[in-house]
Amino acid sequence: MVLQIPKTEILARQQSFKEKFRKEGIDGAIVYASIDIFYLTAFHFRPSERPIALIFDPQGESHLFVPLMEKGHAEAYAHVDHLHDYPEYPGIQHPMNILKDYLTSIGMANIHVGIDGDGYSSPKGYRGPKLSDILVNQYTSIYGLIESMRMVKSENELALIKTSVRWANYAHELLVNYSKVGRSEIEIETKATSEATIAMVETLGPDYIPNGSPAHAFYRGQIGPHSAFPHSQTQNLRLETGYNVVSQAAAHVYGYISELERTMFIEEVSKEQEKYFHHIKTAQDIAFEHIKPGAKASSVDAAVQAYFKEEGVHHLTLHHTGHALGLVHTHEAPFFDLGDDTTLEAGMVFSVEPGLFVEGLGGFRHSDTIVVTKDGMEQLTYYPRDLESLIIT
Amino acid sequence: MVLQIPKTEILARQQSFKEKFRKEGIDGAIVYASIDIFYLTAFHFRPSERPIALIFDPQGESHLFVPLMEKGHAEAYAHVDHLHDYPEYPGIQHPMNILKDYLTSIGMANIHVGIDGDGYSSPKGYRGPKLSDILVNQYTSIYGLIESMRMVKSENELALIKTSVRWANYAHELLVNYSKVGRSEIEIETKATSEATIAMVETLGPDYIPNGSPAHAFYRGQIGPHSAFPHSQTQNLRLETGYNVVSQAAAHVYGYISELERTMFIEEVSKEQEKYFHHIKTAQDIAFEHIKPGAKASSVDAAVQAYFKEEGVHHLTLHHTGHALGLVHTHEAPFFDLGDDTTLEAGMVFSVEPGLFVEGLGGFRHSDTIVVTKDGMEQLTYYPRDLESLIIT
Repeated sequence: MVLQIPKTEILARQQSFKEKFRKEGIDGAIVYASIDIFYLTAFHFRPSERPIALIFDPQGESHLFVPLMEKGHAEAYAHVDHLHDYPEYPGIQHPMNILKDYLTSIGMANIHVGIDGDGYSSPKGYRGPKLSDILVNQYTSIYGLIESMRMVKSENELALIKTSVRWANYAHELLVNYSKVGRSEIEIETKATSEATIAMVETLGPDYIPNGSPAHAFYRGQIGPHSAFPHSQTQNLRLETGYNVVSQAAAHVYGYISELERTMFIEEVSKEQEKYFHHIKTAQDIAFEHIKPGAKASSVDAAVQAYFKEEGVHHLTLHHTGHALGLVHTHEAPFFDLGDDTTLEAGMVFSVEPGLFVEGLGGFRHSDTIVVTKDGMEQLTYYPRDLESLIIT
Repeated sequence: MVLQIPKTEILARQQSFKEKFRKEGIDGAIVYASIDIFYLTAFHFRPSERPIALIFDPQGESHLFVPLMEKGHAEAYAHVDHLHDYPEYPGIQHPMNILKDYLTSIGMANIHVGIDGDGYSSPKGYRGPKLSDILVNQYTSIYGLIESMRMVKSENELALIKTSVRWANYAHELLVNYSKVGRSEIEIETKATSEATIAMVETLGPDYIPNGSPAHAFYRGQIGPHSAFPHSQTQNLRLETGYNVVSQAAAHVYGYISELERTMFIEEVSKEQEKYFHHIKTAQDIAFEHIKPGAKASSVDAAVQAYFKEEGVHHLTLHHTGHALGLVHTHEAPFFDLGDDTTLEAGMVFSVEPGLFVEGLGGFRHSDTIVVTKDGMEQLTYYPRDLESLIIT
C-alpha cells in the first residue's frame, strides 16, 4: 500500500522543476512557499517567523536554508544536496543577511534568479528586507510554476488521494451517525473525527504519516440558515428538525487530500428544500458529463450556469463549479470557472460542487472528488448522493 | 463572561489604525492579510483563491472587498462602512481589475497608499497582477503595522486568553490521562482533544465561537528521540517506557489563544533526562525573573543563554526563549531573542520556553504563557512544572 511518495519521485520533481525554469532562461531559483518546499524535498514543516528557503544553484544542486532548530528535522526528511543553517530569527544577524552571504558563496549573485516572492513573508511576526534590495540579480517571478507542476497527478499521488477518499467516507458516516437534534455541531464533528482518526491510525499502522489532519468530518457552521454562507466558519450551532446542513469530510495521507461534501436534512425535508436539492444534484450530473480530456475547464462551469439559468435559480449561485486539489490545501488551480480556459488532461483531480444558497433557508451543495481519465472522468468519492440517503433520522 | 470582542473595541482599533498610518503621511490603506482583517473588522473567514481586501479611503471610511460567495457572511459579521463584491475568481473579469475600478471610484488613485503587500497572494491557486502595476499611487509598505497594534493586549483580549488557558489545561490533563505505553500519539491526542472540546462547548454554551480550534492537546511527533526536533510534525509514533515526550495544549476563544507545553516522562526517568529537565526548568525560572516592564526582550534570552553556558549545555539549545502570542497564530512579534530589543510593556503576552535538544534522547522544554504586569509578570498557565508531577505512570 502506497503511504508516501518515494524518493525517486521527489528527485524527479526537482529535475522537472530545473528543466522548466532553465527553459525560461533562468539560471537558479529560490523557493519560500512551504507547500512547494514539501513537494520538492519531502520536508514537511510548520512555517513560522523563521525563514526557510529552497535554492537551486546554477549547477543544479539543491540547498535548503533553515533555522538551527529545523536542522536535525531537515536532515532526517529533506532530499537535498546541501543543508545550511542560521542561528535564529530575528537573531544578532538577520537571517536574510546570512542568506545573502550564503547565496553569494554558491554563485547565486549577478545571475538570473527565479523567485516565488521577493523575500520571505509570514503572518507570525516576521519582518525583513526584500531580497532584491540586498542582493544584485536579475529576478523573475516564478510564482505558480511549482503549483502548475502539480496539476496532473502521478500514480502514487492518485493512490494517496484514493486512500484519503476512503477514510473521509468513514468519517462522514460517523458524522451522520452522531448527528442528532439538539446536539452542537462541534460535539458531532469532534466525535466523528476522533473515532475516524483512531480507526485510520490503527488500520494504516505506523507507516501512515498524515502531514496534515487524519480523517475528519465537519459542518463548519453550515447548519440551517447559516449554511447559506458557503465559506461559513464553525459557530457552535445546534441541529434542529427541518434544517438543511452541509457537511465536509477529508483526510490527509502524506499531505494528499480529497473533498467530500453532502447536503443533508435533519429528520424531514420540505418541498422547497427538495427543489433546490434536485437542482444541485442535477447540476453536478451535468458537470460530470462535461468533464473529459481536451475540454476547457470553463466549459464545465458554463454548462452548470446554463442549467441554473434555464431553471430560474441562477441568482442563487455564489461560486464556481469546482477547483483542482491534491496536496495539503484543498484548493489549487485550475478552476471550473467561466474565466479559466485551462485544457483538461487525464490525471487532473478536481472537486465538483455546484451550489445554490437561499437566504433564511440555507445552502445546497454536494462536493465530489473526481479524476479526469483518458475518456472522461472517474468519481472517486462514493458517499450516496440521493435525497433518501441524506435525510438524517 | 467575555466570549468575544465588542463592536466598540473593533471600531476603536480601526480608529487607531487610521491615526497610525496618517501620522506617516499616508492617505489611505489596503489590507489583504486575513488575520489583520479579522482583527480590524470581526470578519473571520477562510482565505482561498479569491482575493479579499479591507480598504480605508482618504475620508477614513472602511470598505470590504469580497467575492460574492462571502457577501452574506461579511454582511453578518464585518463591522465596515461599505461592502463591495465581485462575481468570482478567476472570473470573466479578474478581481484585481474590478478592485482597481472600485478603488478609483472611492478616491484611492493618485494618492499615498499604505499596503501590506503589493497585491493579493495565496498558495491556493491564485494568480494575479501587482497592484502597483495596474493602479497609479505612491505605495508605502505598512507590513507589520497592524501586528504591532496587537502587542499590548486589552482587558477583553486578556480575558479571552485566560479562558483559553483554562481549557488548554483541561485538554492537557486528558492528554496525560490517555497517555499509555504502546498507544499512538494520534490516538492519545484525538481522545484528549475530542473530550476537552465537547466539555468546553457544553460548558461555554452557544455564545462560544472558537474562530479557530476549541480545546486541543497534541504531541506533534515529540515522542522519544523524535522530540529532539522542536518543530516536529505528527508521526504516528507510539509511547515507550523511558521516553521523554513534549506536549502542546491550547484552545481558541474567539480567535485568541494561549500556549502550554510540558516535558514529561513515560513511566520512568533516567539521571541524564533528569539533568536536562532540571536545566530547562531553572532556565524558565530565570526568564520569569527577568520579565518586567522597561526590560528589553533580548535581556530575557540573554539571561537564559548565560545560564545554559555556565552549565555547559549551551550547544544543546536550538531556539530563542519565547515569542509574543494572542490572536489566531501562536507566534507574533516581539521575541525573547538576542536580536530583539523591543522594550517590554505591561499587557504584552509571551510564551516562555527555553529548550534543550539532545540527539538520540529527545527534547526538553516547558512552555508557559505569561503577561507582563505593572511590576513584573503573571504566569497564566498553571499546569504543574515539577518533575514528580510529570512522570506519567
